[in-house]
Amino acid sequence: MLGQFRFETDTFYGNVDGSEVYAMGDFEGRSFDLKELEILPPTKPSKIICVGLNYADHAKELDMEIPSEPVIFMKPASSIIGHLQKIVYPPISKQVDFEGELAVVIGKRCKNIVAEKADDVIAGYTCFNDITARDLQKRDGQWTRAKSFDTFAPIGPFIAPADDFDPSDAKISTRVNRNLCQDSSTSNLISGIPFLIEFVSQIMTLEIGDVIATGTPPGVGELKVGDSVEVEIEGIGKLVNEVV
Amino acid sequence: MLGQFRFETDTFYGNVDGSEVYAMGDFEGRSFDLKELEILPPTKPSKIICVGLNYADHAKELDMEIPSEPVIFMKPASSIIGHLQKIVYPPISKQVDFEGELAVVIGKRCKNIVAEKADDVIAGYTCFNDITARDLQKRDGQWTRAKSFDTFAPIGPFIAPADDFDPSDAKISTRVNRNLCQDSSTSNLISGIPFLIEFVSQIMTLEIGDVIATGTPPGVGELKVGDSVEVEIEGIGKLVNEVV
Repeated sequence: MLGQFRFETDTFYGNVDGSEVYAMGDFEGRSFDLKELEILPPTKPSKIICVGLNYADHAKELDMEIPSEPVIFMKPASSIIGHLQKIVYPPISKQVDFEGELAVVIGKRCKNIVAEKADDVIAGYTCFNDITARDLQKRDGQWTRAKSFDTFAPIGPFIAPADDFDPSDAKISTRVNRNLCQDSSTSNLISGIPFLIEFVSQIMTLEIGDVIATGTPPGVGELKVGDSVEVEIEGIGKLVNEVV
Repeated sequence: MLGQFRFETDTFYGNVDGSEVYAMGDFEGRSFDLKELEILPPTKPSKIICVGLNYADHAKELDMEIPSEPVIFMKPASSIIGHLQKIVYPPISKQVDFEGELAVVIGKRCKNIVAEKADDVIAGYTCFNDITARDLQKRDGQWTRAKSFDTFAPIGPFIAPADDFDPSDAKISTRVNRNLCQDSSTSNLISGIPFLIEFVSQIMTLEIGDVIATGTPPGVGELKVGDSVEVEIEGIGKLVNEVV
């Protein structure tokens, strides 16, 4: 597992093995106990591409039609937070929802990648929470404002390298205050990951570290201040964030 | 005027005075003739925020209602090109439109800026062309795909510093193959620039170099391969791009 960490005033990437973190880059050769480090978002994307309505049952619960092609939108890099960092409830919204998702992290600058070659450009996979001000989403029509508030893109805790994770049938669940709300498998994705990479890379050049969030399963619901929300993906880990 | 340039394999920012470019940064002290330089986009934004339907007559020509609040969407940094760089017509679209716009470039990392203080965070102003695959925009509902293709965000040629440019009533025009298509003034903006900065900065942290494109006046239309499109703003200059 690959993560980004802060120790005192320094930030660095490192390999996580149990509770040990083996530093990379300038800190190469040093190891830390995970407990003494602050966990940062495991990637610094130039863009975050999200796919809407990519689980059939989720489209149904929102009373939206399943699109014939993927519907994409973006969240800004300024919305990213890491594991255990706080989601800030914006005063302008009255309904903030969680959406647990599997995210793909790009490992190679690329354009026009065909689905059969998609594996070549994937660095790994992580958990993602597409926090959404549902009332603003409905009011605006366009989803950008509703999904772009600072802290609305929790990601992590770590990246499971592509060689160590099979995205074709991984359990994905979301809990709020330990209560199970979303419980599905990535086998239920309408558009699979290779197809999504082909689709998105036909539009735009993908950069190293860019994130494609693959959509959320049924069971989305509201968050209140004080709630703790956990997105867990089998084989990756658990992304936990409190709402303040 | 501030620009970014390439000379042989080096890139640098410089001040433009007529046909002279006075280099900044590592090249400080050197000057060049503008003709010997490649003009690059004058900013490297972490995000590009665009405002939809911000001239009343443009909303009418698209048969869309004027929204009660600004509608925002984003274009990825990967879509940026500079003056004289080429717009690539994507094979997946059958209708690619120009949209000439005034863009604000942010000069200070900021959040929650009130309109009265907006001038403090503006570095300057430039021309922007919000290239849009109109058929995909209508088909998708969400505007992201239609507006995010590589080369779909021409910007420049240079940034007029905030002290030297009055955005309250500047002539803005767009020509295709020298034929006048859009001809308006920034005095016709529904949401003015200070209000837009307040609105956007309540949602997300703005970074140095970020771009807010303020919307397009009436007269948008199609581009064909081989067309040359010019966005001209009085007091800034002319952004010219060919479609290939």
